[in-house]
Amino acid sequence: MFIHQNRLQYHARPSKPDPLYARKLQELIGGQWGEMSVMLGYLFQGWNCRGPAKYRDMILDIGTEEIGHVEMLATMVARLLESSPVEAQEDAAKDSIVGAVLGGSRVEDVILAGMNPQHAIVNGGGAAPSDSNGNPWSSRYIVSSGNLLADFRFNVTAESQGRLQATRLYALTEDHGVRDLLSFLIARDTMHQNQWLAAIQELEADGLESTPCPSSFPQERELGQVAYQFMNFSEGTESAQGRWARGRAPDGRADLEYVADPKPMGEAPELGQVDPRLHGTPAKPVPAST
Amino acid sequence: MFIHQNRLQYHARPSKPDPLYARKLQELIGGQWGEMSVMLGYLFQGWNCRGPAKYRDMILDIGTEEIGHVEMLATMVARLLESSPVEAQEDAAKDSIVGAVLGGSRVEDVILAGMNPQHAIVNGGGAAPSDSNGNPWSSRYIVSSGNLLADFRFNVTAESQGRLQATRLYALTEDHGVRDLLSFLIARDTMHQNQWLAAIQELEADGLESTPCPSSFPQERELGQVAYQFMNFSEGTESAQGRWARGRAPDGRADLEYVADPKPMGEAPELGQVDPRLHGTPAKPVPAST
Amino acid sequence: MFIHQNRLQYHARPSKPDPLYARKLQELIGGQWGEMSVMLGYLFQGWNCRGPAKYRDMILDIGTEEIGHVEMLATMVARLLESSPVEAQEDAAKDSIVGAVLGGSRVEDVILAGMNPQHAIVNGGGAAPSDSNGNPWSSRYIVSSGNLLADFRFNVTAESQGRLQATRLYALTEDHGVRDLLSFLIARDTMHQNQWLAAIQELEADGLESTPCPSSFPQERELGQVAYQFMNFSEGTESAQGRWARGRAPDGRADLEYVADPKPMGEAPELGQVDPRLHGTPAKPVPAST
Amino acid sequence: MFIHQNRLQYHARPSKPDPLYARKLQELIGGQWGEMSVMLGYLFQGWNCRGPAKYRDMILDIGTEEIGHVEMLATMVARLLESSPVEAQEDAAKDSIVGAVLGGSRVEDVILAGMNPQHAIVNGGGAAPSDSNGNPWSSRYIVSSGNLLADFRFNVTAESQGRLQATRLYALTEDHGVRDLLSFLIARDTMHQNQWLAAIQELEADGLESTPCPSSFPQERELGQVAYQFMNFSEGTESAQGRWARGRAPDGRADLEYVADPKPMGEAPELGQVDPRLHGTPAKPVPAST
Amino acid sequence: MFIHQNRLQYHARPSKPDPLYARKLQELIGGQWGEMSVMLGYLFQGWNCRGPAKYRDMILDIGTEEIGHVEMLATMVARLLESSPVEAQEDAAKDSIVGAVLGGSRVEDVILAGMNPQHAIVNGGGAAPSDSNGNPWSSRYIVSSGNLLADFRFNVTAESQGRLQATRLYALTEDHGVRDLLSFLIARDTMHQNQWLAAIQELEADGLESTPCPSSFPQERELGQVAYQFMNFSEGTESAQGRWARGRAPDGRADLEYVADPKPMGEAPELGQVDPRLHGTPAKPVPAST
Amino acid sequence: MFIHQNRLQYHARPSKPDPLYARKLQELIGGQWGEMSVMLGYLFQGWNCRGPAKYRDMILDIGTEEIGHVEMLATMVARLLESSPVEAQEDAAKDSIVGAVLGGSRVEDVILAGMNPQHAIVNGGGAAPSDSNGNPWSSRYIVSSGNLLADFRFNVTAESQGRLQATRLYALTEDHGVRDLLSFLIARDTMHQNQWLAAIQELEADGLESTPCPSSFPQERELGQVAYQFMNFSEGTESAQGRWARGRAPDGRADLEYVADPKPMGEAPELGQVDPRLHGTPAKPVPAST
Repeated sequence: MFIHQNRLQYHARPSKPDPLYARKLQELIGGQWGEMSVMLGYLFQGWNCRGPAKYRDMILDIGTEEIGHVEMLATMVARLLESSPVEAQEDAAKDSIVGAVLGGSRVEDVILAGMNPQHAIVNGGGAAPSDSNGNPWSSRYIVSSGNLLADFRFNVTAESQGRLQATRLYALTEDHGVRDLLSFLIARDTMHQNQWLAAIQELEADGLESTPCPSSFPQERELGQVAYQFMNFSEGTESAQGRWARGRAPDGRADLEYVADPKPMGEAPELGQVDPRLHGTPAKPVPAST
Repeated sequence: MFIHQNRLQYHARPSKPDPLYARKLQELIGGQWGEMSVMLGYLFQGWNCRGPAKYRDMILDIGTEEIGHVEMLATMVARLLESSPVEAQEDAAKDSIVGAVLGGSRVEDVILAGMNPQHAIVNGGGAAPSDSNGNPWSSRYIVSSGNLLADFRFNVTAESQGRLQATRLYALTEDHGVRDLLSFLIARDTMHQNQWLAAIQELEADGLESTPCPSSFPQERELGQVAYQFMNFSEGTESAQGRWARGRAPDGRADLEYVADPKPMGEAPELGQVDPRLHGTPAKPVPAST
Repeated sequence: MFIHQNRLQYHARPSKPDPLYARKLQELIGGQWGEMSVMLGYLFQGWNCRGPAKYRDMILDIGTEEIGHVEMLATMVARLLESSPVEAQEDAAKDSIVGAVLGGSRVEDVILAGMNPQHAIVNGGGAAPSDSNGNPWSSRYIVSSGNLLADFRFNVTAESQGRLQATRLYALTEDHGVRDLLSFLIARDTMHQNQWLAAIQELEADGLESTPCPSSFPQERELGQVAYQFMNFSEGTESAQGRWARGRAPDGRADLEYVADPKPMGEAPELGQVDPRLHGTPAKPVPAST
Repeated sequence: MFIHQNRLQYHARPSKPDPLYARKLQELIGGQWGEMSVMLGYLFQGWNCRGPAKYRDMILDIGTEEIGHVEMLATMVARLLESSPVEAQEDAAKDSIVGAVLGGSRVEDVILAGMNPQHAIVNGGGAAPSDSNGNPWSSRYIVSSGNLLADFRFNVTAESQGRLQATRLYALTEDHGVRDLLSFLIARDTMHQNQWLAAIQELEADGLESTPCPSSFPQERELGQVAYQFMNFSEGTESAQGRWARGRAPDGRADLEYVADPKPMGEAPELGQVDPRLHGTPAKPVPAST
Repeated sequence: MFIHQNRLQYHARPSKPDPLYARKLQELIGGQWGEMSVMLGYLFQGWNCRGPAKYRDMILDIGTEEIGHVEMLATMVARLLESSPVEAQEDAAKDSIVGAVLGGSRVEDVILAGMNPQHAIVNGGGAAPSDSNGNPWSSRYIVSSGNLLADFRFNVTAESQGRLQATRLYALTEDHGVRDLLSFLIARDTMHQNQWLAAIQELEADGLESTPCPSSFPQERELGQVAYQFMNFSEGTESAQGRWARGRAPDGRADLEYVADPKPMGEAPELGQVDPRLHGTPAKPVPAST
Repeated sequence: MFIHQNRLQYHARPSKPDPLYARKLQELIGGQWGEMSVMLGYLFQGWNCRGPAKYRDMILDIGTEEIGHVEMLATMVARLLESSPVEAQEDAAKDSIVGAVLGGSRVEDVILAGMNPQHAIVNGGGAAPSDSNGNPWSSRYIVSSGNLLADFRFNVTAESQGRLQATRLYALTEDHGVRDLLSFLIARDTMHQNQWLAAIQELEADGLESTPCPSSFPQERELGQVAYQFMNFSEGTESAQGRWARGRAPDGRADLEYVADPKPMGEAPELGQVDPRLHGTPAKPVPAST
């Protein structure tokens, strides 16, 4: 069960409205790596967790925090949209050069061209559960697999892609209020990258999971001869120079081997026929079925 | 530019047809973590790579290999479907008990209930670019961010989720031919987990990336006071017991701190008004706009 | 900002596992009208609300409650899945008749045919953010328009469709634990239908919104002559018998009129030509462009 | 069966082309609340209707009308696109200031920036079945539940959101032809809101449906103690001030009650384990499965 | 503008209910190649048509007919669902062997396993605008390009894939009523394949379009040297044996040439760097940006 | 199995960066008719092919070539994005008029308005697997039906729509490098249209498929009386003037007939009732179910 507190986790007030930037900031709300994804991803992982209680509690701690992150970003977007196109047009009219060049309905068009039109038409000046191109958020952006190592690796990724996007959005604005919120979110992403990396260490220390994931599958059932081979499928051998092509494998279970010219181990496939009533094209003409 | 070789990378021939299993196996082709995802994810990452040549070449090596993995799985699915519902019905009729109980059109219904109906109606006995529920593959399953650490972390995840699903599918069949192919794919996933983990080590050794990702963002710009705090947003303090709540952070830059009762740092938000011509509900009644 | 309490809002424990029912129950989690939709719809409406504080607070009350509803349903689904296909097969083997008829790997197939295969392969026995056919939840299931009357009408709909689906799911099981949870959810849907209907009354009492919605658009700008006409576009005149075809309109602003044989008021459209470099087919042959 | 008449239901001719506005107007064609949604939603509701004939006939009347609304909007969009980017560029060149500043290929870029690029590249100057951001229309925008009250409530919503968007689009243009068509559509939305509200009255008068919907579910099966309680899950008690927190419930069956500090009624959930062959992370280490 | 006639274009009454077949038949309503696709594809092509009037009128003739095809299929599906799972269970109970083996809630599970669960939960016994796996119809299934040859080729495809699926569905039932409707739809698909092939002939006879499409692009602007070469990118030379590898090209403008061993004409790509504030991984370490 | 060659099939270097054009060019990568669609469509058709070897080999030849087309376009997009918004702003500042008018952060906004914001935020200056509006590529853009005639007709369409879009994109740029690549792609589309048309001739010459497709369905099972009738469902008789309304049908099996006033052959549908526990609205009031 959840309780809402009225105050925000951090400040979310821009210095001034900016509908063009509001569109871009949507990526952090409803994009593939936006806060909706970490919020819902972590909540489902927590609710489905069958591992030790400390993991479940930790996952729900951060999942609950992320609801508040969506709240701050939605508040920020709503405030960035408080300057309507109409007011912007009036401001522009006061600036004679811009007014001369962009006059008439032109300035509104330029702003609306850069705006997400749905911010006006659909959301009436509010945040949308969508990305910076107006694509809807999809639950296929998240995962809850029941295997904590597999999922914590996803979570490290999400915090990395998310922090990367936040730093890009930091460079795309000079608004102090927006940068203030981003500096908070970027810091939390720093913590959360560390947190999930630490959680992976803990899983290994607890003897619950290790590489290769899932570690509970008996490795003698996999085809051992290709389990540590790097195969060079792209012309050129620059790839022979990396750590992935030599030395002990990171899982510590074998040495890596470089295969410069990989060969097919299978046959050229030739498919058989199926029921003629499916009317597929057969290998040679057949009489009509009934 | 690419060249196709006629032979498969490994064998892809089931012991006998099994349209019910064909549906399940689709998860490895067109699911969120299927081979289409790693194939297309790695190819786009390689084509977009601006880092050193050894990385680009390595990424394209594995991306090219994955095209051949989709090929093997598509071949396997096409062969699992070579027993049509009609033939299955005739086989069932020969078995008197099943025939008595499930007779008439019933056996076909049971098989079609478990089948993906689109395998018959849409694909005519061939593999579909879809998952085990018939959902289409979407390019939102992949990422190519331009930051290799962020993307390699995604790739470790993809190989973990993919190997996890392959081991589950291994448990759901006893067909020797299917298990033979899965033992190959699981082994390659072992290699590829190791490969991406090694590539992360290489990025760090080359001084190109480190935690927190992206490492090129000046960390003094983030809000330092919350960058290493674990916040306890879910009742109960089991989460205080983990590695994530104490000691040196995995990035080695600070100590982790446990905040048992996090407080809001922001204000209760109150939004202003927008252009009345958007006809949103205002804080108090206003005259009609024009 | 949000806080999670460890205890559930209500009980969520089935009498026994039932993976077939788990699939169906997913409709209430990630379906078009599932709890994810009301949770996220209300949260966004609350965060975007520019109306009086009582509305914003009320919307966030219910939005926060709904997070806990998703939590209960996810818990229920995870428990319904605790009987794995493998155990079910062993149970079946003990029952000689079923064993004889469905023996071998058949029973697993029947269960998996009815299961969502992704519950095993993707979620490893946990709930998915998807509907009963495995389709992902999409943020296009919700709306936050900035106009409270338009959105409260949506919310009445959501609670009606949601309660309808819950009563259907009630009929599809006899499990006491599942029915217990459904009796709670159905009761809350009763309250929430009443709540949104009351909120619509409040909006009207406060003079903020009325029919036709949005009430702030000056009605003299619409084409008055067709604003209260029922038009009979389908052969037969049964539609003349309803309340919609006669008497005072519900908005109280005019009388309704029945138009038995509506006539086109516009012309037959004929489109002009566009830039030949778009290579559309023109009304008559033209020389090639460059 | 359907028949097409050549003349449009109303005029659909803009005063002049405007590709930037054409993009915005797409929201009314293929958006979540566009005319495709009401057209197809009503048609499916009508085709599936098992209620009295007058309802079925009425639903198909309006569903058929809506096909013609899509037709008018598609015609309008095609005409708004008759000025190609190339012609616009030539017009701009004649205006010396604009020509100086925006010259070269710049003006085309500005127009194309505001345009939906697919209007040129994909549709060649025609309307698309998409929204104002180019997202495809999805049949998940509609519902046909078999319960007329649940669906009529959806229809009231659709006419409210649709009319709201049309009034916003009215404010975003000064083109007389466009406004003429919008004044027609807005008027029809006025009628259709009234129509569905009247239809709800008729359902209740006929004794077919009432609140809570569905009324045919025996209310003694729901958990009565929470069926009329307003629960305050968000800090602050502004929500105590509304109609939803006191007095007779709109369904007339009980009094509403305000619960200021709702308590969890369920337990803290703890999940059991599942088949180890799903390789989920268990509560404590287990030996590898086979 | 459109008018609805009460009678169906053809009969749509099954001999008996069959909820399992209802699921499959959905492919013809809301699948990629279902009747919704041809209905909406042709309507948009007609509304956007800038070619001679005979084409526009012809396209709208068939588009209007297709609305009635969706209507018949929706009616058929609603009738196939008139046997509820509950009634089916009672029927099964009368058959002692089935009753013994499948007794209890088992038969309902088998039927619901094969059913689309949303037919019960979401649509309450009505047709859905979805395919046979419950995926929503998407407007990306259709096209309206402004070029009639490109679109008529799509239409020939749609009528081919649609007829193919209808013949497969014909083989999957023995119900006389269902087969009667399918025999009508298959015949209309025969006509419509012929119709679009004839329309392509007409376009060519009118001098409006020809191969290569679009014919209005000056062919001297394409790279002539590769415009008629068949390139052998897959090992093996079976492809040299086909009509596509020799003789006059179907467009009659050149001879086809077989290139057995195609060579890359471009260089190995090496990308430059982008703004460091995007925090992509560069070719060598750089100092942190600000 | 596949091998990657380092050199591109053709040149892919623009004369200068152009982030606005990069967005548009995405249509050819990840749009409905982009190169991802032909690449993956042909690969799946080839892998599923049960027809003679020459067809399978030919299909895989072209499918493999198309991987290299995506590679060239991705390279081109990455290079078009090498001018960051920041550099563009500095360039603009040097031009005093633009600087004066668009100064401050305005020029960045104009460029970002026209850019796909995800090119910066998500992809960091790389190509995305999306279309020109940022919609993800979906596997529902392709088909693999098992019937080669049905699929080759789709392929002719794909090459027509693709070539059409490429010629439109040719008109939207004057960059010599971009036009050079487009001239190559347009030429290959010319070849591929010819190739698939030739393949259709070959199928017919081999006696494998003919019109109506699928030709293996016994035509006496379709309702002969409507199989060659053109039905005039749209007012006006312009459609009587075309080839589709008279003369021998293109399949050579019957004469076409024009039906000026088509009549319904079916009855007015009236649906029966379903299980009351689905709580649909019935034809008359019923007591509550349990």
